[in-house]
Amino acid sequence: MKNYSIAKSRRLRSTPYTSRIEKQGVTAYTVYNHMLLPAAFGSIEDGYHHLKKYVQVWDVAAERQVEISGKDSAKLVQLMTCRDLSKSKKGRCYYCPIVDDLGNLVNDPVILKIADDKWWISIADSDVLFYAKGLASGYKFEVNIIEPTVDIIAIQGPKSFALMEEIFGKKITELKFFGFDYFDYEGEQHLIARSGWSKQGGFEAYIQNPEIGKKLYDKLFEVGNQYNVKPGCPNLIERIESALLSYGNDFDNNDNPFECGFDQYVSLDSEVEFLGKENLKKIKSEGALKKLKGVKIDLQEISLTSSKNIYDVNNVIIGELRSATYSPLFKQVIGIAMIKKPFWKNTQAFKIDINGKTFDGKVCDLPFI
Amino acid sequence: MKNYSIAKSRRLRSTPYTSRIEKQGVTAYTVYNHMLLPAAFGSIEDGYHHLKKYVQVWDVAAERQVEISGKDSAKLVQLMTCRDLSKSKKGRCYYCPIVDDLGNLVNDPVILKIADDKWWISIADSDVLFYAKGLASGYKFEVNIIEPTVDIIAIQGPKSFALMEEIFGKKITELKFFGFDYFDYEGEQHLIARSGWSKQGGFEAYIQNPEIGKKLYDKLFEVGNQYNVKPGCPNLIERIESALLSYGNDFDNNDNPFECGFDQYVSLDSEVEFLGKENLKKIKSEGALKKLKGVKIDLQEISLTSSKNIYDVNNVIIGELRSATYSPLFKQVIGIAMIKKPFWKNTQAFKIDINGKTFDGKVCDLPFI
Repeated sequence: MKNYSIAKSRRLRSTPYTSRIEKQGVTAYTVYNHMLLPAAFGSIEDGYHHLKKYVQVWDVAAERQVEISGKDSAKLVQLMTCRDLSKSKKGRCYYCPIVDDLGNLVNDPVILKIADDKWWISIADSDVLFYAKGLASGYKFEVNIIEPTVDIIAIQGPKSFALMEEIFGKKITELKFFGFDYFDYEGEQHLIARSGWSKQGGFEAYIQNPEIGKKLYDKLFEVGNQYNVKPGCPNLIERIESALLSYGNDFDNNDNPFECGFDQYVSLDSEVEFLGKENLKKIKSEGALKKLKGVKIDLQEISLTSSKNIYDVNNVIIGELRSATYSPLFKQVIGIAMIKKPFWKNTQAFKIDINGKTFDGKVCDLPFI
Repeated sequence: MKNYSIAKSRRLRSTPYTSRIEKQGVTAYTVYNHMLLPAAFGSIEDGYHHLKKYVQVWDVAAERQVEISGKDSAKLVQLMTCRDLSKSKKGRCYYCPIVDDLGNLVNDPVILKIADDKWWISIADSDVLFYAKGLASGYKFEVNIIEPTVDIIAIQGPKSFALMEEIFGKKITELKFFGFDYFDYEGEQHLIARSGWSKQGGFEAYIQNPEIGKKLYDKLFEVGNQYNVKPGCPNLIERIESALLSYGNDFDNNDNPFECGFDQYVSLDSEVEFLGKENLKKIKSEGALKKLKGVKIDLQEISLTSSKNIYDVNNVIIGELRSATYSPLFKQVIGIAMIKKPFWKNTQAFKIDINGKTFDGKVCDLPFI
């Protein structure tokens, strides 16, 4: 596939770490929340193998925060997500589908409860800030909604634990998955969570002081040398093999939580009020008409730049492929597809046309293993 | 400056015209409303000279529409913009700052009044869809809010009138600036406005049927051959020389309409209700503390990828440069900068550091001429 340049401008915001990753050899960017997000440092497959064995430092500042604070902050946050947060605890991260009043998805952030009246919504690629502002104006909530200066560094991979322990001490290894705490570095406290957009383990450091962020970025490479640390980024192969869904790629505002397998995060039986609750009850009782599923295709290479229809033996469109990659683990192309009812049963065979040739595939469960 | 690739995926949506512009030699993309927007076909300066003399066809499908219809649609649209739309007419486009309840900017779309109860908000790069949805939920408005299938082709440049007349007949030359009407092509009616993101004159065709859109795209090149038509895109040099502001580049949600020179679109004396009205009255009475101004710099080349501070002779930061380009018209670098009070007077001298060297500049009015 031909390469096209990205035309940079202030509108595609740089991060505090951009000049560093450019010295380190970033080769491709995507744009996420109006910000540059590195997408490759050379070969994505090399990055994949490295991530599964060692440790990588990622500039994921594009994972922006929407900070909601004030008297009605808990009410507003709950209104936006179909997940019951009434028993949520400070120091914990919650994966929360955000929905509109039709029950369709707006975003799928991790929400951090900073205090009873202060929340960070760590967003995927859509302007949750303006959704929250619209709701707050309409409901006359007493809240303050801002995008704070927070530029996340992710430390991902099996050696991330040893690396982070050397810098932050034993306490950091005691963080539970999706827990967060504050850690000292250069005289300031920094929120660090055990989380990240890979299944290889690791941390996300929510850095509020860009100057200290740059120092920490450099320190991670200095100390990480012994662990074969490398710069990296969310890895297309690893995230699809791990079935980490991506808003905008695998689902969007035309899909609802039941179609995306988010059933466990839809608290219809709770007493909490959230947008779309009645619609979601109706959708649940009627049953979803399409579902995100895994697919495996008899193909050794793919480069997907938009949705692609897939067909059954009778040339009926049974769904669309939304993300795909060659998987070194499965030794074939795997992907994530929205499949229509009743075709979403496992072992459903399909055909897909790539560059004028037809290939065979099969529907399977998510996660793949 | 080094080139970086754009990593394509479904999340950075292609348009119906993407495969065509790639055959025609697009070299760089930006991302706008989660969609690919061409940014260069080779030399931007060549494109600039061509645009000012002939006619170009632009894939600006990334200029998405937010369609608001239903009983309360006029109320919701008015609530979002500080411009009085009470006397707005069907068949007209209105440039409307969209503000939040602090009076800060959310977007600066052109709003098309399709019917008394149907509006298209032709947006700059932020998710106005979710802002509108949040407001509609909170205010319990009876509205329907969607992103319709509309993929705009812009026809820009002095020869655009002759080209469009050949395809759509004499009636299209009678459209007034910012007027729109419906024109037949391939058996369907298409909304075409006399508008576009250049000052060279032209049209925007709001195409709702992608298959017909592709036919029209090809037809424009077939008929346009005699006018030396070329593929193009919003041109950095032309838009800065013409002082066409860009949300995300020149201003954003940290700026208000008075700081951006939108005074004529802030209807504080009207009776209409809109968000931020009280705050905007306060801001107006206290006076803005910063303002967008033009700048001219004694420099022959610039490549701006983020804001850059500018200093006075005492090394006091007097503002930040947000967009800039070499201008063939002024034979030096010109740009758009947010300048602090009291430094925004014309002829204010400043210094700017580029690649370790210091250059001199002067503040000037917008537009430049």
